[in-house]
Amino acid sequence: MTHEIAVIPGDGIGQEVTPAAVEVLEALDAVDFDFVEGEAGDAVEAETGEALPQETRDLAADADATLFGAAGETAADVILPLRQVVGSFANVRPARSYPGLDAVQPDTDIVFIRENTEGVYKGIESEIADGVTTCTRVITEDASEKIAEYGFDYAKRNGYDDVTIAHKANVMRTTDGLFLDTAEAVGQDRGADYDTALMDALAMHLVMSPEDYGVVVCPNLAGDMLSDLAAGLVGGLGLLPSANVGEDNALFEPVHGSAPDIAGEGIANPSAMILSAAMLLDHLGYDEQGDAVRAAVEQVLDDGPRTPDLGGDASTGDVTAAVIDEL
Amino acid sequence: MTHEIAVIPGDGIGQEVTPAAVEVLEALDAVDFDFVEGEAGDAVEAETGEALPQETRDLAADADATLFGAAGETAADVILPLRQVVGSFANVRPARSYPGLDAVQPDTDIVFIRENTEGVYKGIESEIADGVTTCTRVITEDASEKIAEYGFDYAKRNGYDDVTIAHKANVMRTTDGLFLDTAEAVGQDRGADYDTALMDALAMHLVMSPEDYGVVVCPNLAGDMLSDLAAGLVGGLGLLPSANVGEDNALFEPVHGSAPDIAGEGIANPSAMILSAAMLLDHLGYDEQGDAVRAAVEQVLDDGPRTPDLGGDASTGDVTAAVIDEL
Ligand SMILES: CC(C)[C@H](C(=O)O)[C@@H](O)C(=O)O
Ligand SMILES: CC(C)[C@H](C(=O)O)[C@@H](O)C(=O)O
Repeated sequence: MTHEIAVIPGDGIGQEVTPAAVEVLEALDAVDFDFVEGEAGDAVEAETGEALPQETRDLAADADATLFGAAGETAADVILPLRQVVGSFANVRPARSYPGLDAVQPDTDIVFIRENTEGVYKGIESEIADGVTTCTRVITEDASEKIAEYGFDYAKRNGYDDVTIAHKANVMRTTDGLFLDTAEAVGQDRGADYDTALMDALAMHLVMSPEDYGVVVCPNLAGDMLSDLAAGLVGGLGLLPSANVGEDNALFEPVHGSAPDIAGEGIANPSAMILSAAMLLDHLGYDEQGDAVRAAVEQVLDDGPRTPDLGGDASTGDVTAAVIDEL
Repeated sequence: MTHEIAVIPGDGIGQEVTPAAVEVLEALDAVDFDFVEGEAGDAVEAETGEALPQETRDLAADADATLFGAAGETAADVILPLRQVVGSFANVRPARSYPGLDAVQPDTDIVFIRENTEGVYKGIESEIADGVTTCTRVITEDASEKIAEYGFDYAKRNGYDDVTIAHKANVMRTTDGLFLDTAEAVGQDRGADYDTALMDALAMHLVMSPEDYGVVVCPNLAGDMLSDLAAGLVGGLGLLPSANVGEDNALFEPVHGSAPDIAGEGIANPSAMILSAAMLLDHLGYDEQGDAVRAAVEQVLDDGPRTPDLGGDASTGDVTAAVIDEL
């Protein structure tokens, strides 16, 4: 069966790492993908006034899955609506360290399951008086239940024993109270082991003892920060893939941005993007191929060519070719 | 001139480290303090139904400064109103690593200047429908200006070249947009050097390269998380003091909590609390004595007795005596 994959490279190094991931997907046998490219980001905004043209929205909506690279200044105008287009309710962000790579904490293997529809991301803001502004953070029982269910299921499916529910219910008693109570009820229903953690204390513990954590279920903004924190533990954003998972659709993107400082030089690390493509494979049921791509990336990270962010002088193309070689 | 110091040990190890800090202050010549003790926390709530009795509020309000230890389950019910009682607008949290101590990042010297009156801490929450809750985050120009001014002044006074303004204005465009614009305007007015950083990216960079940062000016909740993150970098909460600074009053407390797991054993690390007392000395104009206390703590951390959290087997009393010896 042919799957249609929307490919949206976006800006900066998105233009370099997205084709690299597509090359890897094309190198797989037994996978039949039809790639359709769409535009988004600063460049298309400069040209047309719109960072995310309607054609690109339609493309992502109609595809079986989307690969997205990165966007520059317009990142929020591109990625937030794209997440809505694919109906994403869970942002899945694995952060793991790889043997042989320098990492602040070499023993990290954590997956952040970030609620992806509400919190401060609802965008409800106003200036209610001169110099007085508000942002209405929304937490619902439905969305909290859905993300907790997804998190507990993910942990079980992927062999993680530890589930941690992050919250700040000592201050946001009503909203994070609801998030916490709802997520705990899901854990109890499933008879699962879990812990709860205040997100500030959790930030400290993640830095000191990441090996104590497995799956971390988080409200939206907390997940944004905690997963970036964890990126720092394992050697930076060049290694972190992510999935935005909806009911019938999904979008895959590296956690990194468009990196304007190195864009155009052909030296961007394609690992995060290729690992995002591996998550896409899993999602479409190609588990074996997803594992093969991850194993190939891991092998190359261990003894293959490295881009400058990892201390080497290889190009994006060198790394991509090495990954394909390993497949 | 005699200063009246309110002393509120609170719960758990607060009962152990607070007297240690008072002992250190009493050992200083040229400092004339009158200590008056007040109750707060779980124990007094269990007894009276109130975690923060009116007498304790009055005590803190009338004192020249307050030393607060820690509270247990009632932490938010104690510390949030106490911060209001002293009119705190700036929560000052230095996070530095000490030579000779194990740290995830041994080259850290960062001071978080956390806005301390608004954001989600306004406590404006409601359940607007069954299973649908909101928290109204408030950001004002006045508070943003005040914290930015405090931050830039602090940096100048204490010899930090780098000021970073943390925000999430790409998502919270109106509220964090106001925070960011206002803080930037203060920096520009002063002709100061500063950077701005999205708080998620900042979390990553702080983990990887804390040496690149000096003073970080943050909205309230971001400051809560980022300063705990930094505690993880330097070896844990046992080392971090903090000040809650108001116009005419202030409260000093360790960043750590009541640590029920080790409370009552006499092995709590008093360093964070003693360093908080040093900040109190600075605040009341005893800069020389503040420096002396910091130097003594540093010396003891380097080659003196250590409590179990730092890998030693000394008691709270041993460390306190060693600090006093060094004075
Ligand atoms: C670009 C921004 C809107 C986005 C977010 O906050 O979700 C980014 O930080 C991310 O984590 O994907
Ligand atoms: C106890 C809690 C209300 C408090 C806060 O969130 O400010 C604590 O985390 C702190 O940082 O002092």
